[in-house]
Amino acid sequence: MKPKAIVDPHPRTLELLFNREDLKRLKSLVTMTVWEGSRMPSDMAEKHLPEASVIIGQTDLPRERLERAKKLKAIINVEGNFQPNIDYEYCFERGIHVLGVGGAFGQAVAEMALGFAMALARGIPEGDRLFREGKEVYGRFSNQASFLISGAEVGFIGFGNLGRALLKLLPPFHCRIRVYDPWLPARWLAEFGMVPSSLEEVLASSQIVFILAGATEDNRGILNKRTLNLMKKGACLVLVSRASLVNFEALTDKLAKGDIRAAVDVFPEEPFAKDHPIRKLDNVILSAHRAGGLSAAYRLMGEMIVDDLTQILNGLPPLRLQGAERETVARFRSMPVRK
Amino acid sequence: MKPKAIVDPHPRTLELLFNREDLKRLKSLVTMTVWEGSRMPSDMAEKHLPEASVIIGQTDLPRERLERAKKLKAIINVEGNFQPNIDYEYCFERGIHVLGVGGAFGQAVAEMALGFAMALARGIPEGDRLFREGKEVYGRFSNQASFLISGAEVGFIGFGNLGRALLKLLPPFHCRIRVYDPWLPARWLAEFGMVPSSLEEVLASSQIVFILAGATEDNRGILNKRTLNLMKKGACLVLVSRASLVNFEALTDKLAKGDIRAAVDVFPEEPFAKDHPIRKLDNVILSAHRAGGLSAAYRLMGEMIVDDLTQILNGLPPLRLQGAERETVARFRSMPVRK
Amino acid sequence: MKPKAIVDPHPRTLELLFNREDLKRLKSLVTMTVWEGSRMPSDMAEKHLPEASVIIGQTDLPRERLERAKKLKAIINVEGNFQPNIDYEYCFERGIHVLGVGGAFGQAVAEMALGFAMALARGIPEGDRLFREGKEVYGRFSNQASFLISGAEVGFIGFGNLGRALLKLLPPFHCRIRVYDPWLPARWLAEFGMVPSSLEEVLASSQIVFILAGATEDNRGILNKRTLNLMKKGACLVLVSRASLVNFEALTDKLAKGDIRAAVDVFPEEPFAKDHPIRKLDNVILSAHRAGGLSAAYRLMGEMIVDDLTQILNGLPPLRLQGAERETVARFRSMPVRK
Amino acid sequence: MKPKAIVDPHPRTLELLFNREDLKRLKSLVTMTVWEGSRMPSDMAEKHLPEASVIIGQTDLPRERLERAKKLKAIINVEGNFQPNIDYEYCFERGIHVLGVGGAFGQAVAEMALGFAMALARGIPEGDRLFREGKEVYGRFSNQASFLISGAEVGFIGFGNLGRALLKLLPPFHCRIRVYDPWLPARWLAEFGMVPSSLEEVLASSQIVFILAGATEDNRGILNKRTLNLMKKGACLVLVSRASLVNFEALTDKLAKGDIRAAVDVFPEEPFAKDHPIRKLDNVILSAHRAGGLSAAYRLMGEMIVDDLTQILNGLPPLRLQGAERETVARFRSMPVRK
Repeated sequence: MKPKAIVDPHPRTLELLFNREDLKRLKSLVTMTVWEGSRMPSDMAEKHLPEASVIIGQTDLPRERLERAKKLKAIINVEGNFQPNIDYEYCFERGIHVLGVGGAFGQAVAEMALGFAMALARGIPEGDRLFREGKEVYGRFSNQASFLISGAEVGFIGFGNLGRALLKLLPPFHCRIRVYDPWLPARWLAEFGMVPSSLEEVLASSQIVFILAGATEDNRGILNKRTLNLMKKGACLVLVSRASLVNFEALTDKLAKGDIRAAVDVFPEEPFAKDHPIRKLDNVILSAHRAGGLSAAYRLMGEMIVDDLTQILNGLPPLRLQGAERETVARFRSMPVRK
Repeated sequence: MKPKAIVDPHPRTLELLFNREDLKRLKSLVTMTVWEGSRMPSDMAEKHLPEASVIIGQTDLPRERLERAKKLKAIINVEGNFQPNIDYEYCFERGIHVLGVGGAFGQAVAEMALGFAMALARGIPEGDRLFREGKEVYGRFSNQASFLISGAEVGFIGFGNLGRALLKLLPPFHCRIRVYDPWLPARWLAEFGMVPSSLEEVLASSQIVFILAGATEDNRGILNKRTLNLMKKGACLVLVSRASLVNFEALTDKLAKGDIRAAVDVFPEEPFAKDHPIRKLDNVILSAHRAGGLSAAYRLMGEMIVDDLTQILNGLPPLRLQGAERETVARFRSMPVRK
Repeated sequence: MKPKAIVDPHPRTLELLFNREDLKRLKSLVTMTVWEGSRMPSDMAEKHLPEASVIIGQTDLPRERLERAKKLKAIINVEGNFQPNIDYEYCFERGIHVLGVGGAFGQAVAEMALGFAMALARGIPEGDRLFREGKEVYGRFSNQASFLISGAEVGFIGFGNLGRALLKLLPPFHCRIRVYDPWLPARWLAEFGMVPSSLEEVLASSQIVFILAGATEDNRGILNKRTLNLMKKGACLVLVSRASLVNFEALTDKLAKGDIRAAVDVFPEEPFAKDHPIRKLDNVILSAHRAGGLSAAYRLMGEMIVDDLTQILNGLPPLRLQGAERETVARFRSMPVRK
Repeated sequence: MKPKAIVDPHPRTLELLFNREDLKRLKSLVTMTVWEGSRMPSDMAEKHLPEASVIIGQTDLPRERLERAKKLKAIINVEGNFQPNIDYEYCFERGIHVLGVGGAFGQAVAEMALGFAMALARGIPEGDRLFREGKEVYGRFSNQASFLISGAEVGFIGFGNLGRALLKLLPPFHCRIRVYDPWLPARWLAEFGMVPSSLEEVLASSQIVFILAGATEDNRGILNKRTLNLMKKGACLVLVSRASLVNFEALTDKLAKGDIRAAVDVFPEEPFAKDHPIRKLDNVILSAHRAGGLSAAYRLMGEMIVDDLTQILNGLPPLRLQGAERETVARFRSMPVRK
């Protein structure tokens, strides 16, 4: 008899997460109780918990529920960020794997981040806008502010999934990359060929600064008036991870002065205020939280989920999804994802 | 006594081509007669020819002039394309090096081409436009047409300087790259890890098609109604080399139907007609011949020029600039560059 | 007051593991009780356990001891393989990190493995031997059995630390790499650009087969008479992980027939029998367990240890050393290391 | 009617150079007059010269012969080095391509050079020798003199075909590479990521020194007593290009003192003196001119020859073989190859 799975993926759906082949693999692996479109009703979750080997989704799992889930081996969060819906400590003690799909967004976000950097460095959207208005300037006279990515000084704020994916795209450009990540040892960062640096050094030295850190209690607003003022004239800020790292009004002011350029994919509130002055600035590229949410990323989640469930149900450790860690799981502070 | 050089770089200038250090190196190498702002007057050129070891620029050099330039060792075209201003055959016989700076644009154009591809694949300028209009769509619902460069099927039309520079940027994306270049042996192309293909195969199979070939008599209008119709629904055309390869009206029609997307950096005439319908289309990125003309590219020319002159004046072969070749020099058909 | 550490590293020593700078960092981090040259005496270990935050070494740690080590946060095995000296289950429950230094050998072993492959492919030691005997054959007539690594069909048996390190050395050779590792998902292996395969496919298709798996209950003797007979005529076997995977007499027989070539760095017993017939064969390279034990590898362990202790004592997860995993820690079956 | 070719490849043969497919392509391209086993007899060569479009081989071609070869478009040297058998100046004037196959050895020699470096760095042949003698030392105690290639300081003497091929193998090792090549501009060398250096700097700073330069009048004996004494204690010399760069007795003395290690593939005379003391030294790897002469290298020559003849006969420039250059063709001084 196959192990049982509670599937409660809202705001995701099975359709979004699994291609035909992976869904078939999943069905051959577990017997599923599925609820989509909203959180699974309590009584339904309660009923199936005692027999569940696996929970896929963000079902509330306080200690009292987990104590009744005696067969539970793995909980898979399909949103992308761990939230306070689980008694993690209990899971660690019991050896229940708590896994997240966040890593699946890495490639999509990294490509978008590089695309933003190139678009800023060469003024691609602005040149296009001028052309549409019939005001284009030809050739090198339009390139006063353009620069090559090759050989540019690059900075990373944060070096997790996004940073690792982006780093893999950069070798052809032979950039020096400074990195600020207070959770990671300097020598380990250096092994990736990067220069471990303070936040201030990253900002003051880089032509392109990528904001790649997840939101934590400690990094709220670290890009503020003081630190943004460290940036070089004409430098480019690429914000693709979490808006909470940036004081948005300070950024808008800095941009309004024309000192720097920026690409912004995440906002303090989404949808973002229709009348916000940043919408009028020429030196910014605006993007409506579009960096990660590609079909390819969601389908990669499904592939990873089935692979890791196969490992776990065969008595082997998972290795594609990201495991929650005792030290950090409580320190991430992300908003739940919108549908 | 230092060898003498005629410097007649219009439409370039010494200032554009040489940074301070390279200008210093150049001056220590040769005694220069310089004319900027227009073509060097005939009598001036005639006067200095007999003593010149080097000509930097596009001075007219028919056989009768060359016969009088008995000390001439090298002619360096600083425009980017060889033109019919020189009796090339005579130079080959005499062993006068005829060199061009076109290779210096490779990196700048390659980065722009990749930037265009990313901007098309992810709808960066269009997303920005919608945001400015207050019509942005958030998250994955805005990404129906988006795709990853990673793993995409890519096509190159032409594999010269631009293709080689672009190829070096693509390894992190693990794309299959099909290439059409009738001047190059299939086995040699295959050594670069590309798939040698017909024009038709490239167009029919690729999600992104890069037009990278120089203009020749043979490739005029090879992207026309018939061949553009081979392209896949939603595929992206990136035109960064020469407009003459494309039948522009056929391209505009194809885009107007919404079948494909395109980024266009070169136009049949520049400045381009203000009322051309392509300026209104959402699925195109327009750019006013901005891909190559970066300060870094011009300064690289200067560095290459000084390096190769040093080689030649020391009795060594040049190796940074591109030598004209007997077989092909007459077959390129590019417009002279605008200032 | 600094946390306390029990340091019981035999058969390693502090001198072997830590360079001057890392030792200084370690001392500034913890107050150490050190015993070298043999296992720390029981009473000494017992005495310091209750106050220890960290244990560096292979001290016996059954449950009753661990229960008394109330402050313990991390146990660091400095041998390279986890052994049955610890009640791992208890550590997992309590959240005590159990870490190993095995990954530090990866680079050294990978380079040696590639060096062996090149030495076999080109007959380097054999050519040298002939030259010393005055029997050398010049030029291409000596290269009948030689082949290029570039483009060769390569096989990996196992894809852990060693495989990952070796994989990073191979991109310039553009080899197709087949991999057999029953503990790893096929799709994940494919993401590394390798071809997931059965043991039989790896052996039958590869010109060079690298044995890179750790010893487990399941893989004892999987290279035996039957499976070795699948190898291609003239193929090369490189054995650098554990001798237990190979039936040594079957390998010797196979080599004696001249069917294949091999480099052997690990032996069923070490020191190895002086009169074993493999010592006389021309088509083998013999090496006395020399692949991993480089000064650089030991000093990397020290760096990793200090980095991860810093992380742990700062409330952050370790990330350089390798954590024991519930599912696999009991399944590895390695010999303890000789001094 | 097909163009005519004189094929006079001694000391090579058609069989050596062409695989079945390339021979078929060649035959479909030209009508061949073939002579193998010795140089083509004079009267035979004279007879076919007037109609020949192509000469494959090292036929003597003084001006008087070339003047009669009115249809000649290309001469292809299949030995590997240009020799004084041709009136090169006349060929340059007439636009006859003079091409050489030397580049085809690059990959084979580069792999051997890296294999030698690894074998020296890890004592592979010496460890094997000790094992065969029953004197092996196990584990780290045998590795006192071993070092990793990763991160090592590397030096190149010469950066032609061999250097370029070797450079492509080294990125995974993240070495700093110093290069000495007086024929090449420093800035161009720097673009490859290498550090342009003097001979003395290369020798004094490198843990591994690769001798990769072709023999010229200028570089005879540049590795002599004085310069070898600049090398670091324990450094490794890998000699794979030409013996004439090295004062062989000075090298032997240096090795006899145990100061450095070396791998030697080329010798002042070949076969080399049976009683030379270098044959007894433990810190040397001896190899009988085996680095380049692999079947794969010869067959690559054939592929290149057919590709470039196809180009030339189609009115396109050759691009796989190496063209003789006015400035350098007379400066190479290599011995003719032995059969």
